Amino acid sequence: MDTVTFSDKFARFSDHWSPRIVGQLNDLHVKIAKIEGEFVWHSHPETDELFIINKGSMVMHLRDRQVPLKAGDMFIVPKGVEHKPVADEECEIVMIEPAGTVNTGDAGGDRTVEDPPWI
Amino acid sequence: MDTVTFSDKFARFSDHWSPRIVGQLNDLHVKIAKIEGEFVWHSHPETDELFIINKGSMVMHLRDRQVPLKAGDMFIVPKGVEHKPVADEECEIVMIEPAGTVNTGDAGGDRTVEDPPWI
Repeated sequence: MDTVTFSDKFARFSDHWSPRIVGQLNDLHVKIAKIEGEFVWHSHPETDELFIINKGSMVMHLRDRQVPLKAGDMFIVPKGVEHKPVADEECEIVMIEPAGTVNTGDAGGDRTVEDPPWI
Repeated sequence: MDTVTFSDKFARFSDHWSPRIVGQLNDLHVKIAKIEGEFVWHSHPETDELFIINKGSMVMHLRDRQVPLKAGDMFIVPKGVEHKPVADEECEIVMIEPAGTVNTGDAGGDRTVEDPPWI
C-alpha cells in the first residue's frame, strides 16, 4: 500500500516495449512502459486492455482506423480487437489488464514479455 | 471505443463528490470525480479501489496514517481497509473499481451515489 508516483517509476528505466508492474488492483496489474517505433499487430481474446498516456503521444492502429492519443488521454481496446501501438517519438504509457496478460497477446513472437518485473 | 480526454471530461461538471463513469474495462468502471473537503470513513469489503490524481492534491486518511497524493500519483486502497479522502482545495481524481461499487462503501449515508451517470 505505497504511493506510486508515475514520474519516479518511469525515471528508473529506459528500454522500450518492456513493461514493468507498478500495482495490483484485485486480479489486475497496473503496468507502465516506454514505447517508441512500431509494435506488432495482436489482440487479447480474453480481456479488454486500458491505456493511459502519461507523457508524449502515440497512435493506436486499429484495422479500420488510427486513433491519435496524447498525454492525459485514455483508450480502452475491447477484447478481441486487433491493435498495434505506434509512437514516432518516445511515449510513456500506463496499462491496466488482468495479471498474466501478455504484451503480444495472440501474436506471440520475440517481443513477448511473459512475466514483467515489478518496479 | 472512443478516446477519453480526461481534461475534457472534467470540464463538463463542477459538483463535488459526485462520480461520473468514463469507461469500462471488463467488469470494472473507470470513474472521475472532483472532490473538496472531507468525505466519510468507509471501506469496500469486496474490492480494492484504485485512485489516480489528475489535478491538484489530496490526502488519503487511513486509520494508522495519512497519505499525501498529488497529480501524477496512484494509490490503491486494499479491500476492507478503511479510508477517508480529504482535499483542502479542489482535486480531480480518477478511480477504477468493479461496476456497482458504491462511493461510500459499507458506510452508506446521504453522500451515497448508487448509480453514477456516464459522461
